[in-house]
Amino acid sequence: MGWLSETILLRTRGHTDIRDLTSQIQAVVDRSGLRRGIATVFVTGSTAGVTTVEFEPGLVADLKTAFERIAPEAAEYKHHERWGDDNGHSHVRASLLGPSLVVPFESGKLLLGTWQQIVVADFDTRARDREIVVQVMGE
Amino acid sequence: MGWLSETILLRTRGHTDIRDLTSQIQAVVDRSGLRRGIATVFVTGSTAGVTTVEFEPGLVADLKTAFERIAPEAAEYKHHERWGDDNGHSHVRASLLGPSLVVPFESGKLLLGTWQQIVVADFDTRARDREIVVQVMGE
Amino acid sequence: MGWLSETILLRTRGHTDIRDLTSQIQAVVDRSGLRRGIATVFVTGSTAGVTTVEFEPGLVADLKTAFERIAPEAAEYKHHERWGDDNGHSHVRASLLGPSLVVPFESGKLLLGTWQQIVVADFDTRARDREIVVQVMGE
Repeated sequence: MGWLSETILLRTRGHTDIRDLTSQIQAVVDRSGLRRGIATVFVTGSTAGVTTVEFEPGLVADLKTAFERIAPEAAEYKHHERWGDDNGHSHVRASLLGPSLVVPFESGKLLLGTWQQIVVADFDTRARDREIVVQVMGE
Repeated sequence: MGWLSETILLRTRGHTDIRDLTSQIQAVVDRSGLRRGIATVFVTGSTAGVTTVEFEPGLVADLKTAFERIAPEAAEYKHHERWGDDNGHSHVRASLLGPSLVVPFESGKLLLGTWQQIVVADFDTRARDREIVVQVMGE
Repeated sequence: MGWLSETILLRTRGHTDIRDLTSQIQAVVDRSGLRRGIATVFVTGSTAGVTTVEFEPGLVADLKTAFERIAPEAAEYKHHERWGDDNGHSHVRASLLGPSLVVPFESGKLLLGTWQQIVVADFDTRARDREIVVQVMGE
């Protein structure tokens, strides 16, 4: 059993900024020297989430539209009343998407489809410095 | 490689009852004596899910509003016709949120943000005794 | 620590085809000979996702209705303009549901509820041959 844990630092623009992390996560698997196992991807913070998507500008826009349908930015949020914040929709979107993803790998390669990229979505209403933890375990 | 698996028992009120489990999950990591690894959180049953959120009453209300938008309680559900149940929306919400979450830890501490708590959401239409499995593995 | 990784091959019909994989995933756990650990389920491709649900025809229909509410098939998608594809809603639904699930097991049995099945949802607009990776690790 081997292990490697690294943190990817990412400056985002917020406002459902969707960013492709696939090559950076594959690089962690490469550095681990492991042949097979799982890579856990976890974004720290409560206004961002992770998933996979075919990463191209059309779908990035389509995902933003869907999140606007699910948790509209202009809706009223109780979170605003409490803290004077403006990012209630950011929190709701992040909780629905979820902060964690687990991707298996074999022969040292993440078992993603050709058109399937690992992305972080930052829903906050300002630019943020994000930490994405990549923990690889296997043999 | 070390392991610890524990089950958290929780009496919920249902109706999108969202409960903070962070300290109980950190306590499992503490008891494991492990320094780094992953904690898998899994809720048994098909009308509850797990995610992370900034746990404060405003956002808890906002999440309920969002789930009502996605799967309204008053909509018609085929599940009701089949079983005479009234919890079709509970099942749909649970499936969309998902029952599992994986959180890495380092130096014995879950790598959560300051305002990021691990929660279970019980969507059922009655009080339930829930089992949440916490499985910690690492070194 | 033991390991077993297998790939389930599945011919789907697309159009939010939801299929029960529980017995096939339990069979992988059985073949591993492991008593306790975690099973990671991951679907390759960007137009399918995994979750759990009480697998009965009513709820399968209800889930399709919910996905139609979240990402309607007839909405306009930028993805179509770019590639001439017709499956923008398939991608959006898949990204929201997520491609991975982690289920713990004890005494060689997945810790699912009685009415909780592991399913893959294929959202694409045509029949597909899907690969679902099941990676079991434990002791």
